[in-house]
Formats: sequence, structure tokens, C-alpha cells
Amino acid sequence: MPESFPMNGGDGTYSYSKNSQYQREASNTAKEMIMETIVDKLDLKSLTVTSKAIRIADLGCSVGPNTFIVVENVIGVVEQKYSSKGLSSEKLEFQVFFNDHVSNDFNTLFASLPPDRQYFATGVPGSFYERLFPTSSLHFVHSAYALQWLSKLPEKLLDKNSPTWNKGRIHYIGASDEVMSAYAAQFEKDMEIFLNARAKEIIDGGMMVIIMPGLPDDIHHSELPAGILFNFLGSSLMDMVNAGIISESQVDLFNLPIYAATPKEMTRLVEKNGCFSIEKLELTEPRSKMETAFNVPALIMHLRAGMEEVFAQHFGREIIHELFERTSQKHEAISHQLESSYMKGTQLFVVLKRK
Amino acid sequence: MPESFPMNGGDGTYSYSKNSQYQREASNTAKEMIMETIVDKLDLKSLTVTSKAIRIADLGCSVGPNTFIVVENVIGVVEQKYSSKGLSSEKLEFQVFFNDHVSNDFNTLFASLPPDRQYFATGVPGSFYERLFPTSSLHFVHSAYALQWLSKLPEKLLDKNSPTWNKGRIHYIGASDEVMSAYAAQFEKDMEIFLNARAKEIIDGGMMVIIMPGLPDDIHHSELPAGILFNFLGSSLMDMVNAGIISESQVDLFNLPIYAATPKEMTRLVEKNGCFSIEKLELTEPRSKMETAFNVPALIMHLRAGMEEVFAQHFGREIIHELFERTSQKHEAISHQLESSYMKGTQLFVVLKRK
Repeated sequence: MPESFPMNGGDGTYSYSKNSQYQREASNTAKEMIMETIVDKLDLKSLTVTSKAIRIADLGCSVGPNTFIVVENVIGVVEQKYSSKGLSSEKLEFQVFFNDHVSNDFNTLFASLPPDRQYFATGVPGSFYERLFPTSSLHFVHSAYALQWLSKLPEKLLDKNSPTWNKGRIHYIGASDEVMSAYAAQFEKDMEIFLNARAKEIIDGGMMVIIMPGLPDDIHHSELPAGILFNFLGSSLMDMVNAGIISESQVDLFNLPIYAATPKEMTRLVEKNGCFSIEKLELTEPRSKMETAFNVPALIMHLRAGMEEVFAQHFGREIIHELFERTSQKHEAISHQLESSYMKGTQLFVVLKRK
Repeated sequence: MPESFPMNGGDGTYSYSKNSQYQREASNTAKEMIMETIVDKLDLKSLTVTSKAIRIADLGCSVGPNTFIVVENVIGVVEQKYSSKGLSSEKLEFQVFFNDHVSNDFNTLFASLPPDRQYFATGVPGSFYERLFPTSSLHFVHSAYALQWLSKLPEKLLDKNSPTWNKGRIHYIGASDEVMSAYAAQFEKDMEIFLNARAKEIIDGGMMVIIMPGLPDDIHHSELPAGILFNFLGSSLMDMVNAGIISESQVDLFNLPIYAATPKEMTRLVEKNGCFSIEKLELTEPRSKMETAFNVPALIMHLRAGMEEVFAQHFGREIIHELFERTSQKHEAISHQLESSYMKGTQLFVVLKRK
């Protein structure tokens, strides 16, 4: 049973729908690349032989609104390409499958569907580390900022007598090589399941775009903005241990089930699976170049919208506000460290084609 | 924009998921008939030529659990038929589309999906008085106790100077012929839209089962159990007018957007549409013969779970509890009238096949 930590639902102050501008920015920078992908690589002629319905899935869609923007971009380019090729006078139809965990707030997602949408909308509850769709039923799959979530934590991390016992830390950043390897092994297992499932579901010639946190082979995770923020969250938790609010063993037993991959690592896993050709696999910048300074309070709101649940399930919901408050109070130190963080290419952009 | 009055969500005291045993009983009595339909009429050989995925939609699924039972029955029979005919060694796959209004509680529906289900589950938000699926994409459509909800009230009912002004009543029961005709005309319009949309969506040879309240041509609506209950709800509202809780004009402006059709009427509308052959169209008994007495408190809980929203949207949520309490207090009179009500065949069972 894959673990599930949905983004904050609803549309309140701490909701993901109100705190996902960074993810939207990342989607925007990826937009051009997705458009290029479709224009250059998607073989619409063969995909529309049996049916004029193009089926698109967004895996890990959360509650919107970013998923709607991506889907509309994809549909726009496909339609343009289809009509420019003069493929048929018959109009294409689009069916979009919005997927996320069962615990995702689908009610909010459905209520915020664009009323003027040009597609048939459906929601698919379930983990993408399982089969979600019939065989050969999808033409285009998109997944942004979802595959960094491991299906579960490596069990070894909870063994006090093992070298993978991750004492005093909440992530593999700054941890032993054994802890790092346990995370990498779990990611490998998860990607194997993910790629196998998608290989069955995506029609021959169909494509998949994956966007997730990444890093170059020679950069350490602790140099990334996300790594810095995780470290500050960890130190806030340790402050709360010292203040007697939570116990140290609670922190020792907690690890974030989040992973960032290198291009080399991802290439190896896709090649090992063997069902997809790699059309593109590179590190890109998630933020536009205009942006010069980090807005730390906004960053922390984003972290809370996306990660409140994983802390709440382990430590209890009553500590959440204090945890993020304590982290916010460190905004100067966070700002200082972020300024010298590695930001060049921290987004892994992958385009695969079903062989 | 079709109106939307979802069943009560969640799983609390007044929830539909806790108060839908009558609908389940109706589903059970329909089960045999649906099985027969599939065994006798569904041409699996031609339907599975291009794909081994059978796509099933339940229109107006609410939050479960009845929809899951129906879907499992349908899948069980299709699989049995498929394997008994030795059609292929390849296993069939099933994709099920659970449809209801955007305001339906899909979170509850998804959370209660059977964990051991043998199908890919999806939710489709939207009114079935619109297109919901791509062209020729469905093999089997089921809709139980949903089509009695009109897409909206006939506007004429709100014209104070017209003979269709339905003063002091909340339904066409006991009303003038003009009111009755306005309801019938709206049902005809709605069925036209419904059948046109489904004709596009259902693959040639695909089937549709519709179950909804019905009545014989020679029986008056006021003789049906539902008609009796609506009358009591209406009289409770008038009591509340007399007690100064709501205004009389509020009641005059309120009409239940619910309709029950006769077999003759339904036959005419299907034939007028022309895209479906009628495989079966008859009145059946929604309850098993064992049941001798009505459980009035349970009936009123059912009414509340299914109809709270339509009253709440017009009168405000604050009067709901009192409305159903006042109606409950009339349980002896209700019981008495129900005993002499017409109960023989009040369920219209329709099986259509896409020509």
C-alpha cells in the first residue's frame, strides 16, 4: 500500500490551490519544452487511426490550478499540430484523466475545473505506483513534481541497530552513505513499478513528460534550495525536542519520503525498463531568470501547503503550526543560505516515447 | 446550466451513504434483470474487436455504496459470458466511470471504492444532461434513480399570472393540468438531450439500462408512495408558513424538479430519438415481496438524505431539520395513506441498445 500525503485541500490560507505559484512558474518554464515535444515528436497520424479521442493523463495533479494550465497547453498544441497537418476534417476530442491519491481533495479539483474547457474531464483516484488505466489506453502522460515522492520510506531507516538509522535527521541530506543508498534503492524500485505500469497503459508511440526535482551528478543535495529548507525544518523539529514538545525518538523515526534524481540515474532506470525511448532528458531551471531574490515567507507557505500532511501524520496535526512558525522565524538565516545555493538546473525534464 | 442537488455527502447520520438501503433493495431486484440483459443481449464479440477494455458508466452514482454493487454485478456477468463463449484467452479489462454532478461528494465516493475491485475506477463530474464522454467510448451505461431529476424546473411555474403558477403546492401532484403538462414537457426536453448525448457516447451495439420511478398510464401520481410523501412534505411547509417560519410566497415559488414517467411516455421519447432499439421497457416492483409494512422513519431519513439539498437551496439550510421533524411527526397519517398506496409497479426498467 503506497503511502499518501496529499497536498492541503480546499482553498484556505494554507491550501495548495492558494500556494502553488512556484509550481506554476515551473510549469510555465516547462511549457515551451512540452510544446516543442509535441510539435517535434508526437505522431498524431498513427495515434488517431482507431479513434479521434486523445486521452491525456496528469499523474499527481493535486487540486489545481496548475494541472489545468498544463492540460490546456497540451491540448492547444495537439490541436494546432493536427489541423496544420490537415490530418482530418473530423474534430479531435480530448479526454483528460486527473490522477492523484484517493486522499487528494477531488471535490475542490472538480469544482475548479475551467467551465469553458474543451475536454471531457475525469478523476482517477489511486497511487501511480500501481496500474491506473486499461492497457494501451493513453496517448499523452504528464507528471510534474510528483515522482519525487517515494511510494514509502525504506524500512531499513527504522532499524535502530542498522547503519541506516537516521538519527537526528529528517532526510538523506547530511546523512551517511548507507542512508543515501537506501533512498536511492527505494527510488529505483518505485521507478521500476512506475515505468512498468505506464508501459502497459501508454499506446505505442504515445509519450510521457516527467518533471521532478533533479540535480547534477557533481552537486550535493544539501546545496539545493529544497535541501536547505528541509534542513531548517529538521532543525526546527530538534528545537521542539529541546523545548520538550516532541520526543527525540519521534524525530529519529521520521524521514521525508522525497528524492531528487540525477540525469545519469534517471537514464539508467529508463534504459533498464526498456519500453521507452528517451527523447529528451536534461536539467532545466525551474524559475525564470527574472527572479533574483527568494521570498522566504512564500516559500514556507508553499512547503506547508505541500508537506503539512507528511509531518501531521507522524507528529500529529497539533504541532504543525508551531513547526512552520519556528521555521519562518529563521527567515534571515534561510535567506542567507539560499543566496549561495545551487540553482542552475534543479529540475529534471524527461520526455519518453513508448517504443 | 442544469441545476444540481447532490445527495447528502460524507457518512454521517443524514448521509446518503447511510440512508440508501431502499435504493439498494431496488438495485437488488433489478440485478436479475440486468444479468439477463447482458447474457441475452450484449454482443461482446463485436464490442471487443478493437480493444479488450470494456468501459462502463454509472450516471448519477451519488456517493455509493449501491453503485459499487451494481458495477460488480455487471462486471461479473460480462466476464462470465465472455469466458463461457471462449471468446479469447486474453483477459478483459474494465474501466468504470462514476458520474454525478460536480457538487457530488466524490471524496467520499473514492474513499469507499472496494479495495479489491477488478476495474479501473474514474470519476466524471458533470450533469448527464450534457456530453460527458468522447464519441463511441462507452460499452455499457447504467443509471438508477437519477433520471427522475429534471435538469431544471419549467420556468412557467414561476409566472404568477400564468395557469402554471403552482400556488400552495410543491409538486405536480394534485396540481392543474397545465402544471402537469409543464413538467411533462420539461421531462421530454431533458430526455431528448440525454438520449442524444448518450447516442453519441455509446458504441454501436452498446447498451444502456435506465431505472427510474414510473407508473402505469391509468394510475395517478398521488396514489404512489413517493407522491404521498411529497404531499406530506408540502403540508409541513404550509404548517411552517402558518407558524410564521417561512413565507407563503416562498412555498408558491418552490417546486420539486422530480418526475415519474409512464412506459408509454418513455417508449414515445426513445422512438422519437431513433438511435436506440428498445430491448425491454416495463414497470417492475422496486421492493421484494417479503416486505409488508413501511418503516416510515427510515423512509423519511431516505427522503432527507436524497432531497435535503433541494429544500436547503430554496428555503435555507436552517429550516431543514424542522421540516423533516414536522413530517416525521405525521408518521401515523403517512403510514395509513401508504398502506392504501399503489405499489405494484412503480419502477420503470428500460434496456436500450445503440443501433
